This record gives sequence, structure tokens and C-alpha cells, in this order.
Amino acid sequence: MTPEDIRNILEAVKQGSQDVDTALESLKELPFTEMGFAKIDNHRQLRTGYPEVIFCAGKTIEQALQIIRLMYGQHHNILGTRASEELYQCVKKEFPEAEYNVAARAIVIRREEILLTDSYISIVTAGTADIPVAEEAAVTAELFGNRVERIFDVGVAGIHRLYSRLDLIRGGRVIIAVAGMEGALPGVLGGLVDKPVIAVPTSVGYGANFSGLSALLTMLNSCAAGISVVNIDNGFGAGYIASLINKIK
Amino acid sequence: MTPEDIRNILEAVKQGSQDVDTALESLKELPFTEMGFAKIDNHRQLRTGYPEVIFCAGKTIEQALQIIRLMYGQHHNILGTRASEELYQCVKKEFPEAEYNVAARAIVIRREEILLTDSYISIVTAGTADIPVAEEAAVTAELFGNRVERIFDVGVAGIHRLYSRLDLIRGGRVIIAVAGMEGALPGVLGGLVDKPVIAVPTSVGYGANFSGLSALLTMLNSCAAGISVVNIDNGFGAGYIASLINKIK
Amino acid sequence: MTPEDIRNILEAVKQGSQDVDTALESLKELPFTEMGFAKIDNHRQLRTGYPEVIFCAGKTIEQALQIIRLMYGQHHNILGTRASEELYQCVKKEFPEAEYNVAARAIVIRREEILLTDSYISIVTAGTADIPVAEEAAVTAELFGNRVERIFDVGVAGIHRLYSRLDLIRGGRVIIAVAGMEGALPGVLGGLVDKPVIAVPTSVGYGANFSGLSALLTMLNSCAAGISVVNIDNGFGAGYIASLINKIK
Amino acid sequence: MTPEDIRNILEAVKQGSQDVDTALESLKELPFTEMGFAKIDNHRQLRTGYPEVIFCAGKTIEQALQIIRLMYGQHHNILGTRASEELYQCVKKEFPEAEYNVAARAIVIRREEILLTDSYISIVTAGTADIPVAEEAAVTAELFGNRVERIFDVGVAGIHRLYSRLDLIRGGRVIIAVAGMEGALPGVLGGLVDKPVIAVPTSVGYGANFSGLSALLTMLNSCAAGISVVNIDNGFGAGYIASLINKIK
Amino acid sequence: MTPEDIRNILEAVKQGSQDVDTALESLKELPFTEMGFAKIDNHRQLRTGYPEVIFCAGKTIEQALQIIRLMYGQHHNILGTRASEELYQCVKKEFPEAEYNVAARAIVIRREEILLTDSYISIVTAGTADIPVAEEAAVTAELFGNRVERIFDVGVAGIHRLYSRLDLIRGGRVIIAVAGMEGALPGVLGGLVDKPVIAVPTSVGYGANFSGLSALLTMLNSCAAGISVVNIDNGFGAGYIASLINKIK
Amino acid sequence: MTPEDIRNILEAVKQGSQDVDTALESLKELPFTEMGFAKIDNHRQLRTGYPEVIFCAGKTIEQALQIIRLMYGQHHNILGTRASEELYQCVKKEFPEAEYNVAARAIVIRREEILLTDSYISIVTAGTADIPVAEEAAVTAELFGNRVERIFDVGVAGIHRLYSRLDLIRGGRVIIAVAGMEGALPGVLGGLVDKPVIAVPTSVGYGANFSGLSALLTMLNSCAAGISVVNIDNGFGAGYIASLINKIK
Amino acid sequence: MTPEDIRNILEAVKQGSQDVDTALESLKELPFTEMGFAKIDNHRQLRTGYPEVIFCAGKTIEQALQIIRLMYGQHHNILGTRASEELYQCVKKEFPEAEYNVAARAIVIRREEILLTDSYISIVTAGTADIPVAEEAAVTAELFGNRVERIFDVGVAGIHRLYSRLDLIRGGRVIIAVAGMEGALPGVLGGLVDKPVIAVPTSVGYGANFSGLSALLTMLNSCAAGISVVNIDNGFGAGYIASLINKIK
Amino acid sequence: MTPEDIRNILEAVKQGSQDVDTALESLKELPFTEMGFAKIDNHRQLRTGYPEVIFCAGKTIEQALQIIRLMYGQHHNILGTRASEELYQCVKKEFPEAEYNVAARAIVIRREEILLTDSYISIVTAGTADIPVAEEAAVTAELFGNRVERIFDVGVAGIHRLYSRLDLIRGGRVIIAVAGMEGALPGVLGGLVDKPVIAVPTSVGYGANFSGLSALLTMLNSCAAGISVVNIDNGFGAGYIASLINKIK
Repeated sequence: MTPEDIRNILEAVKQGSQDVDTALESLKELPFTEMGFAKIDNHRQLRTGYPEVIFCAGKTIEQALQIIRLMYGQHHNILGTRASEELYQCVKKEFPEAEYNVAARAIVIRREEILLTDSYISIVTAGTADIPVAEEAAVTAELFGNRVERIFDVGVAGIHRLYSRLDLIRGGRVIIAVAGMEGALPGVLGGLVDKPVIAVPTSVGYGANFSGLSALLTMLNSCAAGISVVNIDNGFGAGYIASLINKIK
Repeated sequence: MTPEDIRNILEAVKQGSQDVDTALESLKELPFTEMGFAKIDNHRQLRTGYPEVIFCAGKTIEQALQIIRLMYGQHHNILGTRASEELYQCVKKEFPEAEYNVAARAIVIRREEILLTDSYISIVTAGTADIPVAEEAAVTAELFGNRVERIFDVGVAGIHRLYSRLDLIRGGRVIIAVAGMEGALPGVLGGLVDKPVIAVPTSVGYGANFSGLSALLTMLNSCAAGISVVNIDNGFGAGYIASLINKIK
Repeated sequence: MTPEDIRNILEAVKQGSQDVDTALESLKELPFTEMGFAKIDNHRQLRTGYPEVIFCAGKTIEQALQIIRLMYGQHHNILGTRASEELYQCVKKEFPEAEYNVAARAIVIRREEILLTDSYISIVTAGTADIPVAEEAAVTAELFGNRVERIFDVGVAGIHRLYSRLDLIRGGRVIIAVAGMEGALPGVLGGLVDKPVIAVPTSVGYGANFSGLSALLTMLNSCAAGISVVNIDNGFGAGYIASLINKIK
Repeated sequence: MTPEDIRNILEAVKQGSQDVDTALESLKELPFTEMGFAKIDNHRQLRTGYPEVIFCAGKTIEQALQIIRLMYGQHHNILGTRASEELYQCVKKEFPEAEYNVAARAIVIRREEILLTDSYISIVTAGTADIPVAEEAAVTAELFGNRVERIFDVGVAGIHRLYSRLDLIRGGRVIIAVAGMEGALPGVLGGLVDKPVIAVPTSVGYGANFSGLSALLTMLNSCAAGISVVNIDNGFGAGYIASLINKIK
Repeated sequence: MTPEDIRNILEAVKQGSQDVDTALESLKELPFTEMGFAKIDNHRQLRTGYPEVIFCAGKTIEQALQIIRLMYGQHHNILGTRASEELYQCVKKEFPEAEYNVAARAIVIRREEILLTDSYISIVTAGTADIPVAEEAAVTAELFGNRVERIFDVGVAGIHRLYSRLDLIRGGRVIIAVAGMEGALPGVLGGLVDKPVIAVPTSVGYGANFSGLSALLTMLNSCAAGISVVNIDNGFGAGYIASLINKIK
Repeated sequence: MTPEDIRNILEAVKQGSQDVDTALESLKELPFTEMGFAKIDNHRQLRTGYPEVIFCAGKTIEQALQIIRLMYGQHHNILGTRASEELYQCVKKEFPEAEYNVAARAIVIRREEILLTDSYISIVTAGTADIPVAEEAAVTAELFGNRVERIFDVGVAGIHRLYSRLDLIRGGRVIIAVAGMEGALPGVLGGLVDKPVIAVPTSVGYGANFSGLSALLTMLNSCAAGISVVNIDNGFGAGYIASLINKIK
Repeated sequence: MTPEDIRNILEAVKQGSQDVDTALESLKELPFTEMGFAKIDNHRQLRTGYPEVIFCAGKTIEQALQIIRLMYGQHHNILGTRASEELYQCVKKEFPEAEYNVAARAIVIRREEILLTDSYISIVTAGTADIPVAEEAAVTAELFGNRVERIFDVGVAGIHRLYSRLDLIRGGRVIIAVAGMEGALPGVLGGLVDKPVIAVPTSVGYGANFSGLSALLTMLNSCAAGISVVNIDNGFGAGYIASLINKIK
Repeated sequence: MTPEDIRNILEAVKQGSQDVDTALESLKELPFTEMGFAKIDNHRQLRTGYPEVIFCAGKTIEQALQIIRLMYGQHHNILGTRASEELYQCVKKEFPEAEYNVAARAIVIRREEILLTDSYISIVTAGTADIPVAEEAAVTAELFGNRVERIFDVGVAGIHRLYSRLDLIRGGRVIIAVAGMEGALPGVLGGLVDKPVIAVPTSVGYGANFSGLSALLTMLNSCAAGISVVNIDNGFGAGYIASLINKIK
């Protein structure tokens, strides 16, 4: 609520075109639906153009379903991340148009047409095992209206594979680089391109990898500039921020 | 070197307009100056529009001076980060136009005119003690040609201070949020704006802060989307990536 | 045993109204029941007004049952925390009045009437997935005779939800704030209220959350004053200390 | 600003007793003074009865002085924590009534009379080396109007010392327990008293103490209930929250 | 092999009572049985009076069985630690006299009479859930010929339970103190007794317990002297070293 | 691609014996097969004499099978590490000559004759439970054409077992030392031999072993020189680097 | 205070030979001197035969001096650990018989004759840099009346040095093994002797030593039995517990 | 001492050509000089061809000097690592031929002619600030008789610098790769060369670098094979093991 909004309400009150109780409600405004266990933000898509997203981990199936029903009734596109196969089966029974991206463990229900951007987001992985996280980023970015290019398995251990796809990678307006194990890919990319690189460490690896800590620290300490980092395995976050950047006008 | 570049060289060789040795040198190309202890990347500004930057920590004064002399001779703008007062005094003797940002510990020598962007980068700090890191980001972004707005000491412990400046913060094309201690500022901002937020944890704090680890983890785990993170105290990195985003056309 | 108690025993011995052996027993006193694998504190409720609580994790079902039988015979209210569904089924067979709070994984047997306080404890969660820990706090506080208000899913990523409930939250004599992921909620609350805030980090999250370490560090480093912290997922501890504070006369 | 406050302003606007611009300012209200490097919260004492506190670490002497001057002009009591001897000398030159608690490294300027509570806060340390942190808590609590009892060097390695002071400790409405090394004192106290215990780990120790981490973990994992924890060495935070509890009416 | 042993062999060679090859074998001696996957130390019991012990975790059932068969043939007492129920069933089929301590997960086969010491080892636990580790220590110490007294569930949260058993605890020649969660028991005991205390942290707890790290650090940092520590959950190691101390003549 | 290679291509272009497009392809060369989810390096064996290796963890069975089919068609020896029993059953159905080393969890398909070196690699373990990691190293080294000697269960707790095999160990050109728990074996070996020692920490152990961290740190901090370390449980890496050293001519 | 003590007091009260107030004081007894900043345990030497020890780190010079004066007046032997050279100079001025062990940083004042045991404690170090910690153990053990044998610089990197001194080491009734870096010495010793080994990790080392954490973990994870561990650099603690063991009758 | 050595001594005793006492000494042999605080290994150079090396950190100047004098008397080449400028001045006064490598902080005294190998060791750094560690490796390798090639400042942030020197790097028989910050250089090199790579993490960096932990983890987790790792900043260890490999015949 901007100062301008407040001024307008005050003027309306002064001129009697709005009574005090209505104005009070506006100023206290409740742009969400109370569900007891959750408070759903209804105005979000109006404000930002982005659908509300459901982080399904830690919610019971019944809680997830209730939220989906509410959002479905508002005709929004729906994205459920970290969704189990079991949840998807329940959702599908009720909403047959629901799709499931197995690798990304994401449920998508498209209720509005999505126009894709001309510019695209490059999504790059170091290895095959990093693909699920990359897919979560891709599903997110696509649902938010971005064109996406996938370039998988180009890690630094065989760097000629990276070079052969460098033109395609560089063509993106922003790059998502997903890597586990030593996580060196974003740093090498950062020295080769002049686009913002969103680095996503994954928990892929073993031993002193410590569930992704190794890749996370590598990315944070990269001496190449132009790299920022999201949480381990956080494909959704990477897709979201890449979308914010790709849609800058 | 793009495929197009290679094709051009090959055509020139075929048509005899370039001899084999010259072409060989081009293909092996050495776009840097060998200094023994360092290899300076000469073509960087041509390629990216960004001046080469000197990370002064871990270099002797003599090493830093030699690099500055080389770059000065190439008429580039020069930025030295993590520079001691002592190094600055040596630089100033030789290059009187050198400036020193005490808070940021940055040396700047301007050799080319800098045109600022219309859009700006919002640089926000949670507290007063976070200002040095924010200044490093600001000096970097300004030298790279970005307009910057500084909004300091608006941390979440007194959140009405943040609200009073929210319009100015939101006006930026990209936001740099600098915070130590619990580092909650970027997450709160992420829920209030729809711009990319570059979060910079600082080592400000004590006890279980563990030299910035606390703020770093907070930022990585933020449940607000749209946030990515750079290394602890890495103002330069934040300024660089924000510049990449702000200059997207 | 206060100095006054000791004096009374000594006086009784002096006056011959108590023999030495009885006095010796009193001074060595054993205010617990020896069960071999456990020593149950019988006098606790008399001393503190609080029922003995059974931490069921790490006890076999048979051990838990024996302790419950003993306490049941003493007509105390009984609270079993971290209790499995399986344990509850065994308890219910023997004590049909036993109730089970599924979210909190708590068994409750009410054997005495509970009078609730007028003042209340506000129990707030950042997200839906934090509710089980909040429920453990609520069950504990209610069994100890406190009125409780639940305010769930008001995390800082959508801070207007928090504002809309701020009056209710502020009305409590003490506030329990439960949050996982980045755990910023207690710090933001601490700047908005002037009541003691008991912060409970939860293990909700993933990646660099490190099973709740992230939220724990955030809360310990909060720059808002008035916040103290209990162990990760320790809803019981939060409910207990909040009860101590709420019942201060 | 409560709904009641908003209603009052709206009624005043409606009845014409307040013009729109004044109301707008009230609703946007800026209850702080902008100093560029800091934003000082002027209304804090009115709202909470607590003086604004200056965390001096990380501020330059000039910045600290400017804030003190501003607050001095508002006739508030002033508390500067983590203040160096050097800063104190500068403050004293300008404000001769400033006092310095060497152990606590705290500067205090008393500008208003302080009425002490009848009930008191017990401040307990395990060892002699924990006294500076305890003093920071004591100075804070006293400036906020609380009576304080100091009971030092009663750690669990010689537990009879603790017993001899138990009546005094128990007499407090709330207890601050400060301990380094293994940090067991608060847990032992928690089993002996029925008052809220605020545990403060200190960085006192060596080796696997890891700068207070050992004591912090001990306190968080205490099996005695009724204990909550603040940051390592955070005497100020403990004093603040103890004051909130001690002043509950 | 002491210098005296070597001298004897040399003298025998010189006097011709031992030939060179036999002497060579003695000096190279191989006091173990090669099993390919393991090398079993046959002379151990002769040297130290202690039976060889089998750490079953990480061995296949077939490997464990082969080692037991070998040792059984040498008429030694056998102790298998960290043994699964499944392994025990296989052992029992072949050696019906094998016993299984369920809590300790230890298999014992007694093939020689065991004479117990007069002096005893006190084995103390803080809680009920620490009993399995204490039982591993007890089984070990008993098989090695030590009298043992078990005192369970006397943790510091209800310290009067500890006092009531203090005479029994103090009567031991050495004390094993087993505790999880905050692990404060050994430190409190260390201040009350003048016997060596072997502290055993357990992984009992949750949250910031970090699988026993909390208790381990507490014990290492104890300010009471006379305490040394073994690995988390290492009941066997505690029983072994306590036996070494208890049997000192 | 060496400078000599580039010169040859350029000369061919100049002399017209190679057209520009072919040369362009050579210079951009793509020495791998694109499989969408993976990019298989075809020229690897030609360049290095080493077969491509498949790290099976994190790949679906279908992905692993597709890669094996491709490599099988190229008549290379195939090594699949971290392969489940289930994957092996699928592979065997299609390629009956596939072998499975159960301990190492490795699939091997031999398609070319392997000539073993005269010199050998000593592979040593501290305990029985370290054998699986040692076997992974052995399988790797053997497939790469190295003779291997296995010396198992010679850890430092019974150091005479190590001495009895020292001549065999020393005879290797390079030594792989595999140890969990405290991981002291490589350091002791390093003081007894003058060959390079590749140390492999394993995750064998419990408690403060922290999944191999303990052994890893021991090995990195060894005061004996001549030791370098690979990742926890990384038998493959040790076998690979030992092969590089053993095959030095 | 044993049950027997309590009985005696009660009998005296009953028979009128002791009045109630005196008995009360006895039962509440205060066997320490209150110094405000410290509480000195006067009866300790009577109870345990051990002089009170002053941990000087974290105490001001004036505090340390006051404690020494008090103890000096009680004619006890005095040991001050972690004492600076500066503190020693102040102590010496007042008590000229004070001695200073530079390596151990320990102040000793002998006021009573010390009779040494026949049996001895072996104190072993891995390297030269571990000697200060070993000396702290030796000074402590000697002041407590133990004969000590020092065997320095016998670490496992040159294990023949250890063997040449093994008879002397084995001759001790208990062994203190001090080691930094990888800390393997106690584990190797544990396999060679059948005496209790007190392991002391030191902070000697660099890099992944992490201030002694590496050696600490090694010692805790030793697969040799008979080893227990004290805190990093805790020579005093090792000397104290070794004395308890060496003096067992 | 091999079995053959023992046999020879035994035969000599049998034949009377060696008396028992001499043989005893040989078998107990003491191939070191006892200095009280240290035991110097005299036979080391005979056995391994490597001079004894003095790790100067943690030794007093007098201790270091005594060791140097002893070794000087034995006409060995001497290497002192981690040597302060101050120590060097003392050494130089006594041994004017001593040299000091300032960057490596190494003292070298050459007393024997050193023949260099034909093959060489490539020593590569990622940045300028890594040079001191690389120099320690180089000084070590050269004193041990290896030819060395230095290639500095070729980190992955500007990977074309690495390519331009790749032929020189590849030419080495073994490669030492030194890198701080994110430490990605060894992994990228490992994919480009088929020589063993010894990776040395350095403590160069800041923030989440955690004193070299970041680079260490990166190197341990490298997905390129052929890489093994030494301790953080351990240039000496890398030089030593590279020498072992380079001198394989």
C-alpha cells in the first residue's frame, strides 16, 4: 500500500464517499484466505504476475489438497514443488489436467495461457544426477512464462563438452548452473560469459561432500565475479530469480 | 573465440591473406600480459565493458603497484579492493588522482569518463556496521557505470524504518541487501518487492554468529523467493552481479 | 529442602518428637520411586504444580507403560511427549481416557481438573510445517493450566499476514514463535512487541538448513532484544517456560 | 499503531479536525531520526519504557558520539554496550556524568530517575571469568529499573557452593545463569528452582570449547525444563529479557 | 618382545640350542591367524588376560561366524559387540551356550570360569535411554572379571536422585558415567567424588544434540578434574579402560 | 588438441587438402556422444588408455543401461561403480559376460584383453570393514592393467600384524592405504616406506567418527610425509591415481 | 557429608551436646571462603589430599593474587595453571619461593613436603611442540605426589623411536600420551601396552588440524581399547586423572 | 630391518663373529640422536636419499638451532620449513651459507651437491596469493633433486590463461596444483592431463572460505579422477610426494 493509496482512502473518507469502517478494513486489509493451518495470499498474482507456489514437503496430503482447491477456484496456474508421487495421484483424481514432472517432483496445473519470452534462460548441469534439480528450475521458469534451454552434463571434468555448447549457453539472458560434488561449473562459466549466473549446489556426491556443503562453499568462494548462489537443491528458487531477471524490461 | 571467429581465420588462411604462423598465434591467442607472479587479462574491458579489478589482499605492495602501472598504461579505469591505507599511500604518490574510499577500503583511479545508467541499484543495510561492505558494493557498481541509491540501517528489529524507505528501495532495478547478525533483512525484503535481491551476509556480530555463518545460512534458507547470495563480506561480488542485471537491455 | 525444613526436623529430634532414624531418612529423603530403569519423582507436582512429564523417545513401550501406571496411581495428569502412534494404542487399551494429539505426537491423560489462566500465551508459527512443534508447545501449556492462542502461518515472506494478527499476538503475556527454514519470525516479532518471546527453531527445511541449525543460529543472533531460544523442535520446553512466565503473580 | 489509533485518525479526518496531509504523515509516520549512517528510534522509550541502547562494536567513535548526542538531547537514559575504554574517554570529555563499568565494557549516562522493582533478578555465574558477561546483564537490568542480586562462582564442579546460595537464587522472579566451559550450571539450576532461567553461554574456556559453542549446546540440550538460551556472551540480551519478565504485572 | 626375550633367543642360538630358522621365526613372529579378510590375534589373552573382542558392525554374518569358530576352538571367552539379533540367531544355532544382552546388543560365550574382583566399577546413567550404552560397558567389564554396580537414571535435572545413591557410586574404584542430551552428569560427579570418572557421551537427544556431539563437548570441557572421555556410545571402550584401572594392583 | 595439431589443420586448409567446413568441425570438435541426459566421451580411451567409467549412483537404471550399450558398441572395457545389485541383474540379462564384485559394488565387462604390469600396487586395509572400499580400488586398478597385492586387516591397534606383511607392502611401486575409525594406518606406513601412499578414509566407525570425517582429518594432518588423500570411501579415485603412478615409465 | 556424618550430628542434637543453630550451620555448611568474585574451597585438601588449583586464564592479576594470598595463609601447596609471565612476576615479588615452569606456564608454591609414589606415570609426546602440554601434566602430577617419567618426541612418523623407549613407557602404572597434528600416538600405544592411556590432543598443527580438532577426533575414534581422552591442550586434567589412577591402593 | 638383516645377525652370532651384546644393540638399534626435547633420525638420508627436514613452527629458536647444528655436523643438506625471519637471522650468523626463501619461509643449507632429474614437476597456482605455498613445494622438490617448472596465476576464472600454458604443465611427470578460494583448478586440470595431480588447498580467501576448508572440500570432491590432496597450505608435503613420484624408476 503506497502513500498514494493511503491518500486516496483519506480523501474518500474526508469527502464522505467512504465510511470509516470500510476505510478501516482497507487500511488493515487482509489480502489472504485464512485456512487455519495456512494463510493463502490471494492478491499475489495480481501484484507480481506470479502464481502462488505450494511447497508440499511438510504438509499433509489433505492440507496440500485444500490449498490446491482454493487456488483452482481462483483460476490461477498452480505449481506444487517437492510433491510425492502419492500426492500427485490424489491431485490427479480431482483435477485430471494436473501434470507431474517426475524428475523435478513437481505438480503443474495450467489454468491460464502462458506466453513465453523471446529471450531465454540457459539451464546447465554438471552431471546427469543434477538433472532433477535443473528440472525443478525449468518447470518453475516455464510456468512463469520464460523460454528455457537445457544443456545437461557439461561438468568441468571434461571441459570440451562445455565449450561445444558455449554459444548456446551464452545466448541466454541469465544462466542457471547446477552442480554437485565439487561444484566448480558456475565458477568456470563465470569466467567465460558476461551474464548473471545463478549457481545451484546439489546434494549429489558422497563422503566429504557433506550433502552439498562442498559444492555450496565452492560456489560462494568462486573467484569469478557475476555468480550468486541459492540453497542446496533449490531449483525452484533459481528458476524464480532467473525469471525475475529474464523479464526485466 | 566464437565459431565465426575461427571461420574467419580459416578463410583468411585459405585465401592466403593470413600466413599459418599468424593464424596459429591467433588460435592459441594470449590475451594477457605475463608478469611472472600474475597474468593480467588485457582484453577484458573490450569484451565485457568492465575494467579489470585487483583483489589486493594477499598481494605484496610491489605486486599491486606493478599491476596498477600496467593497467594505467592501458588507460583503463582501475579498482583495487581490500586495499590497505598503506597501499593507498604508495599508489597516491605515483598516481595523484587515485581516490580512497575508507569504509570500503577501495582504491579507484578514473581514467575514462563514466556514464551512469538511468535505472538504479538499491543498496540496503540492516545496520551501521554493515556499511563498509555496502560501500564496497556501491564503489564497484558506480565505477561500472550504475546509478546507486544507498539506504542504510533499516534492519528488521525496527521494521517501520524499512517501511518508510520501501518506495525508494522498490524503485531499483535490482536490490543489494547487506546484513550481519541474524541476516533476516533480505528475506523480509524478498516478500515485499518483485525485484531480484542480491543478499550479502556480513561478518558483523559475535558469539554464535561464527564470523558471518549465521547470516549466510539465514539468507540461503530464506522462504521468500527471488533471493540469491554471495560470499560473506563480498561487497564487490554483489556490486558486479547487480551491475550485470541493471545493464540488461 | 529449605533451611526452615531442616530446622523443623532438628527441633523435632531435640524435643524427642522424631527419632533419629526417621529424621535421618527425612534428611536423606528419597522423593522418588525406584523402578530400576528409571527413578520417578513423586513430589514434583506438590512442589511445582506441574505434572511429571514422560519423554517417550528412547524408552521401550513396556518402560513407558510402567511409568504411566505408576503416575496414574498417583492421580496426576500425565503428559507423554514424542510418543509413537503404536505406544498410544497400548496406552489406550489400558487407560481408555488417554487422548492423542497426532500433530504433536503427545499422549495426554487428564486425572485432575485444570483451571486455565485469564492471561494467555500466543503461539505463532512461520509456516504450516511448523505446526507439529507448535502443537507440542500448546498441549504442554494447556495441560499446565494456561490459556493458549494459536496463530499459524504468518512467516516473514508475506509479512502482511503477520500484521493482520499482530493485536492478537501482542495480547499474550508471553509469545512462543516457532519457525524453520531461515527462522526470521522471532526477530521480526521481537521488534514489534514488548513481551518476552520464546523462539523455537524447527528442523523444517532442506539443504543448508542442516536440520534446523540455520534457524537456531538466526534466532540466537537476532538483533531484536527480548528473545531467548530453546532446542530445535523443542515445543515442550517452550510450552513449559512460557507457562512459568505466564503464571508469574 | 493499533486499529484503534487508525480509527481515531480516520474519525478526525472525517470530522475535519485533522487535514489529510497531517493524517498522511501520521499513517506513514517516521518515528526515527535519519542520521545517514543510522536511523535512531525516538519513540522507543515512550512505547516500551526502555531507553534506546547503542551496540558500540562496529561503529566508529564519531558515529557513536553522534548517536549519544542525539539521545542526550532527548533526555533519555543512555546505555552503550561493547564500548572500548577509548570511546568512554571521548564520551566522558563531552558528558562528564558518563560512567563506565570496566568488566561489562558498558557506558551508562543516567538522565532520568530510575525506580527499582521490589522483586529481583538473580544473576548467577559458574566461574570468576564469567563475571564480565554477568555484569553486562546486571548493568542492563539495573538501568531498566530492576533490582538485581549477584551470586558469582557457584559452578557445578563444587556444587555445595551453589547449595549454600540456593535460597537467594530462588528468591528471584527470574534467574540469569551465566557459564562457560561445559556450561552445566543452568541445567542443574533448572532442576532445583521453579522460575524461568535465562541461560547465557560464555566464550570462557579453551580447546574443544570452540569459543562458547560447547556451553551453548549444553544449555540448548538441557533435560531440565524451564531454560531458554541467548547468544554466546550476550549479557545485554539476557538482562533485557529478564527485565521483561520481572516487570510483568 | 622385550630386550630380555631377544637376549634369550640370541643366547640359545649362540649355544646351538636353537637353530637359525627357528630363531628367525621367533623374531619375525606372527602371533595371529591369517583369515584373508581378518588377522586374529591369538596370543592376546596370554599377554593381557583379556579375551579378543569382535566388533561385529561392518562384518558380514559369515565373517563374524568364522572368527567366532576360530576363537571358540581356542577355548577363550568371546565377546561380540554391536551384534544384530540376526547374527545372534546364527551364532546360537552353532553355539547354544551363547547369550545375548538385548539392550547392549552383545553376544557372550563363556568358555572359562570368570573370577570377579572384590572392588567394583560403578556404572551410572543420566537417563533411561542411556541404559543400552551402560549395559555394553557392564557386559564388557563383567566378562573381563570385574564386579559392577549399576545406578541408572540419576541425571542432574533431578539431582536429589543422584545424592541418594552417592555412597554406592563413590564406593567404586572407578566410575563410568553415561549421559546423552546435555551430558552434565560426569562433571557434577567429578566434583563430588575423588575417583577417576570415565565419561561416555551417548547419541540420545534431538535437535542441537547433533547425534551426541553436545554431550561429548560438555564432557571434554568439564571444569571438574578427574574426568576423561571415550567416543560417543562407546560402552565397550569405557568398560575396557575401567577394567584396566579396577585391576591395578 | 596441441599446437602441432592446429598447425597441421591450418596447413591442410592452406594447401586446399581440407575444406573450411571440415576444418571448422575439427577445431570445434565434439569428441563425445550426446545422449540428452549425458554426454559420453568417446575418445577418452584413445587419449589416455583408460576406459570410460560410469558412476552409477544418482543415475536411473535406464540411464545406466543406455550408457553401457553405447560403450559396449565401441568395444571398450566397461566399469560401473556404486552399482546396485538390482542394476547388475538388468545389465547381466543384456550382457551375460558382465561380472559383479559384491564387496566393491562394481560391474565389470571385459571386452579387450588386459595386460598386467610387472610392478604392483599394494592395497592395504586397517580392518575387515574397510575391505569394500579396498576392493573398489583393486577392481579399478586391475581393469586398468595393474597387478595388485591385497593386504587386509593390518591396522595400528595390533601393529605386529602390519610388520609381518611389511616386505610385501613395501614391494609395491605405490601403496593404497584404506582405513576408517581413527585412520592412523597411512601415517604409520608413511614413516616405514619410501613409496607414495594414497590414503583413503572410510566411513567405517561410529560416534565422533562423523561418517569418515575423523579418518579424513587424521590423514590430512599426518606428520609423516609422502601421503596424499582422496575423498571418503573413494576407492575408485585411489585405484585410478595409483594406476597413473604405477604406469609411469 | 555422608549419612554417618548426618547421624552423628542428629545424635548430638538429641543428646543436647549440640544446639540447633550450630547443627543447622553444619548441615548447611559453607566449606569455602566467599571473595565476591570467587568462592574458595577450603576443605578440599583435607577431603582429597589435593591442593586447590587456580586456573589463571580469565582472571585479573589482582583476582589471582587475592586467591593465592588466601591459600598461602592456609599453608597449602599452590598450583596456578595458564599463568602469564607477567602474573608470575607479581606473585614472585610477594612470595619469593614461587617457581615458574616456562614451558607449562605454571606457577608452583611448595608449602608442604611432597612424598613421591614408587610407581610412576609415563608422560609421552609425539613431537617437540607438544612438550608444553606435557609439562603442564608433569608439573601437576609431581605437585600431587607422583613420580613422573618424561619420554618426548616419539611420534608414529618414525616409529622406531617409540620402540626404543617402549620398556620405559610400559613401566608406568598409567600413561599420558600427548600429540597434535594427526594425533595417532595414543592409538598405537594402546595396542602395545596394557595400562590405561590418557590421551591429550594438542592444538599443534595447521590447516585441516582446526586447532586440535583433528587430533581430538583421532583419539576418540581409536580402535585400540584402553584409551580415554581429555580436552585439547588440557595437560592439567591429564595429570590430575593420572594421579587419581596412580594412587589407587 | 628386513628378515635378511636379522638372519645375517643371527648367523654371525652362531658363528661367534658377533657377540651377544653387540647383536642385541643391533636388534634394538637406535638410529637417532637423543636431544631430550627431540630425537633426530640419523639414518634417514642413507635409507631414503632424503635429508631430514625441520618443521620450525612450535620449536624455540634454541631448539631449532641445536637440531641444525647436529645435522650440519653430519654434512646433510638441511631444510627448515615454516621458519621465521628471526630464526633465519640466528641461523645465518652461525652458518653464513644458509639461504632464505622469503615467500616460502624456508631456510636451506646446501652441504652436498644436488643432481637434478631430467623429468620435471609442474607447480601451478590459481592466483598470486597462492605463490608462497607453491614456493614451499618448489624449494622442497628442488632440494630433493627434482627439476621444477613454475606456472603461476592460471586459475579457472580466466581459463584461457591456463590453456596457453597447458603444454608446459602437461610436460611434467607429476603436477602440483595450488589453489585457494574455491579451489577448482586441480579438478579442471585433472580433466585435461593424464598425469597424477597433487592438489594443495590454501587458506587464501575470506568469508565462507573458512581458512581453506572450502578449497579442501572442492578438491576432495573433484569428479575428475587422478587427483589426491594434501593438508591446507602444505607445500612441503606436496613437494615431497611429487618427488617420490618423479623419481620412480
